[in-house]
Amino acid sequence: MAMPNKGDYLTTIAWENDGVKMIDQTKLPESLEYITCKNYMDIADAIKKLAIRGAPAIGVAAAMGLALCANNSTCNNKAKMMEELGLAYDILLKTRPTAINLKWGLDKVFEEAKKYDRVDDIKKNTILEAIKMSHDDITTNKLLGKFGSDLINDGEVVMTHCNAGALATVSYGTALGVIRSAMEAGKKISVIATETRPVMQGSRLTAFELVQDGIDVSLIPDTAVGYLMSNKMIDKVVVGADRILKSGHVFNKIGTYQVALLAKVHNIPFYVAAPLSTFDMDSNKEDIVIEERSADEVVKIGEKRIAPVGVRIFNPAFDVTSPELIAGIITEKGVIYPPYELNLRSLFKSDK
Amino acid sequence: MAMPNKGDYLTTIAWENDGVKMIDQTKLPESLEYITCKNYMDIADAIKKLAIRGAPAIGVAAAMGLALCANNSTCNNKAKMMEELGLAYDILLKTRPTAINLKWGLDKVFEEAKKYDRVDDIKKNTILEAIKMSHDDITTNKLLGKFGSDLINDGEVVMTHCNAGALATVSYGTALGVIRSAMEAGKKISVIATETRPVMQGSRLTAFELVQDGIDVSLIPDTAVGYLMSNKMIDKVVVGADRILKSGHVFNKIGTYQVALLAKVHNIPFYVAAPLSTFDMDSNKEDIVIEERSADEVVKIGEKRIAPVGVRIFNPAFDVTSPELIAGIITEKGVIYPPYELNLRSLFKSDK
Repeated sequence: MAMPNKGDYLTTIAWENDGVKMIDQTKLPESLEYITCKNYMDIADAIKKLAIRGAPAIGVAAAMGLALCANNSTCNNKAKMMEELGLAYDILLKTRPTAINLKWGLDKVFEEAKKYDRVDDIKKNTILEAIKMSHDDITTNKLLGKFGSDLINDGEVVMTHCNAGALATVSYGTALGVIRSAMEAGKKISVIATETRPVMQGSRLTAFELVQDGIDVSLIPDTAVGYLMSNKMIDKVVVGADRILKSGHVFNKIGTYQVALLAKVHNIPFYVAAPLSTFDMDSNKEDIVIEERSADEVVKIGEKRIAPVGVRIFNPAFDVTSPELIAGIITEKGVIYPPYELNLRSLFKSDK
Repeated sequence: MAMPNKGDYLTTIAWENDGVKMIDQTKLPESLEYITCKNYMDIADAIKKLAIRGAPAIGVAAAMGLALCANNSTCNNKAKMMEELGLAYDILLKTRPTAINLKWGLDKVFEEAKKYDRVDDIKKNTILEAIKMSHDDITTNKLLGKFGSDLINDGEVVMTHCNAGALATVSYGTALGVIRSAMEAGKKISVIATETRPVMQGSRLTAFELVQDGIDVSLIPDTAVGYLMSNKMIDKVVVGADRILKSGHVFNKIGTYQVALLAKVHNIPFYVAAPLSTFDMDSNKEDIVIEERSADEVVKIGEKRIAPVGVRIFNPAFDVTSPELIAGIITEKGVIYPPYELNLRSLFKSDK
């Protein structure tokens, strides 16, 4: 179970021959293409342009980026190599501000590097650590998927927003991992995917990977969420997360907050599925930077301009969902229920 | 005030030399092009493909379509001509099912035709009636704009969804008429326009006409509505309507319901601006057909495919907003407040 079963589901990212091979998600759904990153700057570019995205996936990508930096290094002593790794760490950390997994992945590899004195040992062990993280990600997703599966009943319709699937992780997915696990348990599940403007991760990625798996999926515009909920066409909502605070506040793709609020008003349970690496037990809500992305994401689709020249654009990439809107947070250690502050504190006290 | 002031705002549709000239809204915002409809089938096609859209605009278009049918007719007696008009009536009525104004426009011209015995009088008077309706539409919008303007305070940020502007009417607009009127009254107003997936009337049309007018407008993805509301970036919401029932239920562009619900939860007043021709005092909510439109609107933008082959699409064009979410309905007779059933009954008793 620790090794990726490549036959089953898409593998988003993998270490391969001194490079990092990943699906170029900017090309989906038109074509399934791979790129190979040969150094950490390639990884930083891939994260910035969303060739790879999704909190767990960019955590592993950043970890592999740091391992690439070590592997490519010509430094002949530990001090110089740690300096070089520190530089790469900063550059990789700055690629995207909101998801915590980026820092988590970088810290893991950086701490591993610190343990060894010889340059060759640092190279070997940072690579091993990054590869292990990619395998652990799949194990984690299958575990949390199994816990989440118990929340979904046979025959239910599950809505998801953005992509928290195989393509947001190394494989299998978090929110879509819950759906896969429910299906593997023999339940018949239908999925409603929101398009997720502006980057269209719902249309391009979630619909793509569910169609590939033969899972029953319907795509709706983000404007139709209220319509479906008020017409009793949705039984549960499951989404991923980019950062979860100790208070239970969830930072996730723009639009998550309104989906959660609409679910609350319509009495539809709203769940968040995320590994423990997504939790930030130190920060407060006000500390977190919400990334604002380029106007081009809104004014253009491909090369086609869909908004007039001269219009101002506001394009925040994430929003915050309050704990009172969340029925449960599905992790690899089980489902966390309210009160989140209390229950998360006990979980992390016993676990970390 | 009864005549369109062409210098001021875009004119969407006008009778011109035995034809009907209209802006081809499928070409916006890239280019401002006009098409001329020579017969009622051209009008029906223009409505179906959304070259012209917006409840008041398609009401006038259908009326002009029926007048074109009369004008082009070679029938030499009233009975035959009325039969031909009846056929055109049915074809025009079926172009789109949800907006009531289509039927209202057709009925006005058809009733006018009935009044005359001579074929030439029918031709002349149906054309005059259709032209009068186009002038009245502007008068109506300016009146309702003025009533609505009193609800908007200096310096406020007003959100609107879809396009209820000059382009949804003959000119000036309903929801955007309220904003124009507030600005003409010397108030400084900023507008937030939602993109309005899938057809993007917010990006393509609302942003376009407000940029043309030099009105301060920012465009946001439909997913960012909750974010802006929770961050206190919106003071009021004003939208148009395709059909308003005697109960106060408002049928409007998909996404309106969730904007209204989000506004309610965030204590932001949500107003609907619509002429009396948009009211349907006969039907119940269950009687109204919600048009479901082509999957292509969701899977493609221009020629670019944004969703995978094989995904199912659900694309309802309208939704229903309950009266309890609506702070007021702005009409040319003043603002109607709850209880809507009672207040609408008195209004229509005294008026129609």
